[in-house]
Amino acid sequence: MKAYKKKDFPVWKIRQFLEPGPIVLVSSHWKKQDNIMTMGWHTVMEFSPSLIGCFITPANYSFEMIRKSKECVINIPTENLSKQIVGIGNCSGDTVDKFKKFKLTAEPASLVKAPLIKECYANFECKVIDTSLLKKYSFFVLEVVKAHAPASPKYPVTLHYRGEGNFMVSGKSVSYRKMFKPQNL
Amino acid sequence: MKAYKKKDFPVWKIRQFLEPGPIVLVSSHWKKQDNIMTMGWHTVMEFSPSLIGCFITPANYSFEMIRKSKECVINIPTENLSKQIVGIGNCSGDTVDKFKKFKLTAEPASLVKAPLIKECYANFECKVIDTSLLKKYSFFVLEVVKAHAPASPKYPVTLHYRGEGNFMVSGKSVSYRKMFKPQNL
Repeated sequence: MKAYKKKDFPVWKIRQFLEPGPIVLVSSHWKKQDNIMTMGWHTVMEFSPSLIGCFITPANYSFEMIRKSKECVINIPTENLSKQIVGIGNCSGDTVDKFKKFKLTAEPASLVKAPLIKECYANFECKVIDTSLLKKYSFFVLEVVKAHAPASPKYPVTLHYRGEGNFMVSGKSVSYRKMFKPQNL
Repeated sequence: MKAYKKKDFPVWKIRQFLEPGPIVLVSSHWKKQDNIMTMGWHTVMEFSPSLIGCFITPANYSFEMIRKSKECVINIPTENLSKQIVGIGNCSGDTVDKFKKFKLTAEPASLVKAPLIKECYANFECKVIDTSLLKKYSFFVLEVVKAHAPASPKYPVTLHYRGEGNFMVSGKSVSYRKMFKPQNL
């Protein structure tokens, strides 16, 4: 599988990868176990600190792992990982070693114990910083404390979930930069 | 401009339009004034009730209008409205009548006073139902109480913001339905 040559990426700039709304893989670690889940319900919440909000149902095996460890990694998979994206969302970490089953490589992160998924385009190490909406809405607020992304390609080809098994593949890039006020760029 | 023939759409199904992560236009109404803002930081939070979480900076003129009226409409603009999407995000409702300036039509909604934007592909009438993260994170939790969408085309061609004036245009559709467990569809 393709391996991206990643380097440190400014955490306040990761919105360029998450705001377009790709389906992501969330890796976690708790009590010597690694796990991965597929996630589509997330949003950027701030540039600096770099905040992400996300909904994770307690029905997911990852929910308690993330809640208890207070950490996770958001990984950006590209279109070539479609089988992994769908397969990971359709089995549970309580009976399956997902790294093994889906032939993915767990690499050590720098600031969290949850592993990076090597085959993904980018990896964002996250700490859970707010759980006040967790009980009512299963909503975590995460801070991205370290980010890894390649210099090239500039943008990954991502999958965007529409429900019912249907996805949209990210399309062409367009710039409307000239129409922006400088302070809004 | 193109006018879509819309009908009532089940509120628990709107995730198919929002989960892929398009830039949206949020219309609001307060004290006889209508306004519109461009928004990219939003996420689905529940099917039923149909919940959306979104970040809106208090620097936006719309912030107080939505906070005070406790209502808004999320409108899904398509690629042909790119000039409106960018232009609306680069001026402020305190000095500009955005419906007039951008030649958009305000249509009455059913359950909220904020107007629907006729030229958009779909319109979701929303009530603000939770403001507990508003002070700390400028984060609103909205409930979609009524949705309007056309039967055709099934999927809109949307813009997805990457920051710095750059957008991704939604691309091709792919189905991995056969790989899903029935309960996950």
